[in-house]
Amino acid sequence: MSSTVHVFGAAGFAGAQLAALIDAHPHFALGQITARADAGRPLREVAPEYPVDQELVAPDPGGTSAGDFAAVCYPHAEAAELVGELVDRGLRVVDVSADHRLPDLEVYERHYGVEHPRPDLVAEAVYGMPEINRDGIRSARVVANPGCFPVASILALLPLKDRLLDAIVDAKTGVSGAGKTPTPTVHFSQVAENLAPYKALAHRHAPEMAQALGVHVAFVPHLVPLDRGLEATCYARVDGPVPSAEELLSIYQDRYADHPFVTVRDTPPDMKGVQRTNEAQVAVLPDPDGGRVVGFGVIDNLGKGAAGQAVQNLNLMADRPETEGLR
Amino acid sequence: MSSTVHVFGAAGFAGAQLAALIDAHPHFALGQITARADAGRPLREVAPEYPVDQELVAPDPGGTSAGDFAAVCYPHAEAAELVGELVDRGLRVVDVSADHRLPDLEVYERHYGVEHPRPDLVAEAVYGMPEINRDGIRSARVVANPGCFPVASILALLPLKDRLLDAIVDAKTGVSGAGKTPTPTVHFSQVAENLAPYKALAHRHAPEMAQALGVHVAFVPHLVPLDRGLEATCYARVDGPVPSAEELLSIYQDRYADHPFVTVRDTPPDMKGVQRTNEAQVAVLPDPDGGRVVGFGVIDNLGKGAAGQAVQNLNLMADRPETEGLR
Amino acid sequence: MSSTVHVFGAAGFAGAQLAALIDAHPHFALGQITARADAGRPLREVAPEYPVDQELVAPDPGGTSAGDFAAVCYPHAEAAELVGELVDRGLRVVDVSADHRLPDLEVYERHYGVEHPRPDLVAEAVYGMPEINRDGIRSARVVANPGCFPVASILALLPLKDRLLDAIVDAKTGVSGAGKTPTPTVHFSQVAENLAPYKALAHRHAPEMAQALGVHVAFVPHLVPLDRGLEATCYARVDGPVPSAEELLSIYQDRYADHPFVTVRDTPPDMKGVQRTNEAQVAVLPDPDGGRVVGFGVIDNLGKGAAGQAVQNLNLMADRPETEGLR
Amino acid sequence: MSSTVHVFGAAGFAGAQLAALIDAHPHFALGQITARADAGRPLREVAPEYPVDQELVAPDPGGTSAGDFAAVCYPHAEAAELVGELVDRGLRVVDVSADHRLPDLEVYERHYGVEHPRPDLVAEAVYGMPEINRDGIRSARVVANPGCFPVASILALLPLKDRLLDAIVDAKTGVSGAGKTPTPTVHFSQVAENLAPYKALAHRHAPEMAQALGVHVAFVPHLVPLDRGLEATCYARVDGPVPSAEELLSIYQDRYADHPFVTVRDTPPDMKGVQRTNEAQVAVLPDPDGGRVVGFGVIDNLGKGAAGQAVQNLNLMADRPETEGLR
Repeated sequence: MSSTVHVFGAAGFAGAQLAALIDAHPHFALGQITARADAGRPLREVAPEYPVDQELVAPDPGGTSAGDFAAVCYPHAEAAELVGELVDRGLRVVDVSADHRLPDLEVYERHYGVEHPRPDLVAEAVYGMPEINRDGIRSARVVANPGCFPVASILALLPLKDRLLDAIVDAKTGVSGAGKTPTPTVHFSQVAENLAPYKALAHRHAPEMAQALGVHVAFVPHLVPLDRGLEATCYARVDGPVPSAEELLSIYQDRYADHPFVTVRDTPPDMKGVQRTNEAQVAVLPDPDGGRVVGFGVIDNLGKGAAGQAVQNLNLMADRPETEGLR
Repeated sequence: MSSTVHVFGAAGFAGAQLAALIDAHPHFALGQITARADAGRPLREVAPEYPVDQELVAPDPGGTSAGDFAAVCYPHAEAAELVGELVDRGLRVVDVSADHRLPDLEVYERHYGVEHPRPDLVAEAVYGMPEINRDGIRSARVVANPGCFPVASILALLPLKDRLLDAIVDAKTGVSGAGKTPTPTVHFSQVAENLAPYKALAHRHAPEMAQALGVHVAFVPHLVPLDRGLEATCYARVDGPVPSAEELLSIYQDRYADHPFVTVRDTPPDMKGVQRTNEAQVAVLPDPDGGRVVGFGVIDNLGKGAAGQAVQNLNLMADRPETEGLR
Repeated sequence: MSSTVHVFGAAGFAGAQLAALIDAHPHFALGQITARADAGRPLREVAPEYPVDQELVAPDPGGTSAGDFAAVCYPHAEAAELVGELVDRGLRVVDVSADHRLPDLEVYERHYGVEHPRPDLVAEAVYGMPEINRDGIRSARVVANPGCFPVASILALLPLKDRLLDAIVDAKTGVSGAGKTPTPTVHFSQVAENLAPYKALAHRHAPEMAQALGVHVAFVPHLVPLDRGLEATCYARVDGPVPSAEELLSIYQDRYADHPFVTVRDTPPDMKGVQRTNEAQVAVLPDPDGGRVVGFGVIDNLGKGAAGQAVQNLNLMADRPETEGLR
Repeated sequence: MSSTVHVFGAAGFAGAQLAALIDAHPHFALGQITARADAGRPLREVAPEYPVDQELVAPDPGGTSAGDFAAVCYPHAEAAELVGELVDRGLRVVDVSADHRLPDLEVYERHYGVEHPRPDLVAEAVYGMPEINRDGIRSARVVANPGCFPVASILALLPLKDRLLDAIVDAKTGVSGAGKTPTPTVHFSQVAENLAPYKALAHRHAPEMAQALGVHVAFVPHLVPLDRGLEATCYARVDGPVPSAEELLSIYQDRYADHPFVTVRDTPPDMKGVQRTNEAQVAVLPDPDGGRVVGFGVIDNLGKGAAGQAVQNLNLMADRPETEGLR
């Protein structure tokens, strides 16, 4: 028997892909796929790369049932309200927004500039990286789907977490990471033949990385002229002698041995192997003279960085095989 | 002694480049460079690729003087009002908008959906292609700078004008041709890895081509994932036998012999030789079995297709060498 | 019981995708996947976007069995030799090269500059467009997979075949269509921010179009800065009055009603709906003043234009559902 | 009276632009512009973006005169031979290759894998960054034009040189930096929609940076899908307390006050202001919690990173204004 998954906010980049993944999933069935502005249109018309005929509708939390699942792809603050309502109705929810990622409410409110409406759910929510919290995710009512930058950079350094002294994350993202709203920043004439650091040392994803890695993180994202894909090159000083390349490779392979979506490579990856998938590829090199390692992580920002990750979490929550519907 | 050129609408793509060309011009001096929303900011801040320190200001037609020149880079309909006011004040104006390109007011009003406020100036305006109207431009009070698509396609077929039976213009333009306003159409994620026909057989530049070439024109523009550059491949049936490749080359070379910005090539051009210039490159091939020729024209849509062309026209109006400030 | 498909030339763009489609196909099983230079490497290493672990091997026709299927992704002339050998061994073959597309050997030899080694198989081969020859494909020993440009342009005009007086095909292709060999033409710095007509009126795909449409075709392809996708805008004069937009739409819908990979749209399509699929989208508009119609066709040049099409043909040859493994 | 500048290796990306800059320079005149393979063709044919009609010729050092200047745009090792010969003939030379950048021959030979033919000239050569060695450049016989990555990263950290404890350079370059030779690495289909770290911690430009900054440098370059432009984000721990943003800005402004091609900004720059120029833009931010600063540098890799820089050096060597021919 299938489980119903409602996708709230299905016209955006992440939501549309999530709806398409659920639509093609062997176990899940699409419930509501919502989009206020595009209600009444089939999803494929709004997002032609996804062949989903189902119509978008205005969100109707009252039309959901206890036991259903939901994924909420709303802007922060708006998401928290809806997640609360859905949980109260008995649904289990993956929050693709940032609203449940930072258990320290002070940090949340400093970075997002709003008061959180449901501190109880923030406290309860599980951070949705199966490579960290697989078991917690299985039983969670609210899973906080991680940010795209944190996924790539945390995976790039996670196996060394206990030895890290600090971390620098220099990340490069495709434009889909900036969302679907047309702004001067995403105008083709602005992006093409350009590369722009932005929100340097001030991006909201930094505390999420720091929380997962346990050290201060200096984070500088860059917008690059491509649509989908995200790369993080992560420089980290480590406690004690820097392991050799072989030792590092072995540490990483061990750490990810039973994580089906993380591939450890012996050379830094490019984006060709991860685009349009839920895969992550990581590599690590020693810089013994600098007392540090350099970790590399690549993902599809809409895949393992958003929609694919959400489905992986839903699989765990519904007690399905972790890779179902993702390969 | 220098002449003053005011640039109205200097924050858009064409206006900013025009202001930069005037700023660097040996003869002209910048008067007002206007932009309501960005008033008070130096142009280089708004358009970083142009090193112009002068500040944008709110438009002040009253601050201009008889004998000055002006270039108006406003949306259609808005331009006509301002052009009229400036001419009444004694300025000579290049209208970069579409407002004075179509002498047949019925055609104008059908395509642009507005009534023209100054039919007198439409009647008087000279179509600003020096390859057609060089002498008229010299003495004009109002020069209608042509549209970017018409420039490339008219130049591609003009030498055969007397023999044309019809014309098909299949054009491909970079995204800067769509203007600076962020819209879903110019979102990087929409444009990159895509190609889109738009306004097929219904684009406003078609009557401008038909008027210059004297035949029905079927015009289909396509948006391609590049910033600057425009190519027109033009298929035209000709009266009588189709000339040979050599004859065609010779006809084109003769036609453009004294036009410094048109280079006739013996093979279809790409965009590398015209970007960031006021150059046009054209070529022509015979299709004797089809009873037609295929003409090719490439320009920079912001150069010969807008700002460069405007400076070329201003040079003529001010009795300066046609190429001054453009090489 | 599954059928074996050997892919000869599996390291190139089309061959690699074809191998990946077969690898994931519910019915077919991969036999040899060959690539002389990369023999011994898993395909995923050579073509990271395809998660195929099987190793490439040197081609060994002797290792195939009667009753197997093969797809040959070799350069022209080289393909014909191998196809002949395979057919003689009792295989049924989809030739992805151009070697069996032109039944008129004089035309073939003029355009490809070589003598054909197996005129018998050229005579026997079936042109592999299911929208034209579905039944013939089912029983063919040799299927000539069509060229990428012909697929898009033939589909764009096919419903009007009986009324066509002539045809102009103005096509735009992504760079993957030029193949994997690094040449100056496909250098990123040459392609990016550029657009180039090439082989205008002299491309080898023109006779293939003419043969299928029954009229003279003037064909001008253009290389555009994107990887995958192909668009053809096709201008054709028609005998008799030009049907209205509604009539044209209805003619196209009827023609393609039972062809699952062709979608008829009422507006010209862009590439978003066909990339990485075997879909084609077509549209058509009337130009009554010009006595012509304008047909539009978009495909993925490696999908419906090569590998997807080949799988569609293999499905028919193996008496499988036409869409199996392609959705 | 003008000075003659010979450009050896003028068909490559840097050489062609250098020849074009010299061709348009008010003081310099082009001598030989050489390219073995393209000898006999006008430069504009080989590099259509540069309107230089002069013909390429086979290199003829014997045809140069004492007192002439030369720029050598050869691959490393080949350059050293020619530079030696030219200096012996009495020319003063800017070596655009890497052959004279590393005074420590052991370092040179380890990184470039060849023995240097002229240790005397390596010892004598001046590193060609006017922001470091302006006076030395004025009188040098051999100027070692710096690598593109070092220019951007050294400028990003130079004002803090005396306080640096270490440095990490995470750089992103356009594809023109990889040169004109078509290879799989620069195939459009490989680069587009991709981003690839390469030669991480093993790139030859690292010792050049270390030498100029006086600390260990961990250097990871990334290839991004754009043609021209290079950005370096540089993370450096500093001795003592980390200055505030205002203090840093002031330190940088002071350091570059009399360097006309370096603009200090208060926010990280993108590439729009430097492409097709000899400008560099830098910015710096404090990361007090990390005990470090983050410096940003952007240049055009073919401008300030190669050809423009060479002209700036030639201006100094010829006792001309430093900015002549560059604005």
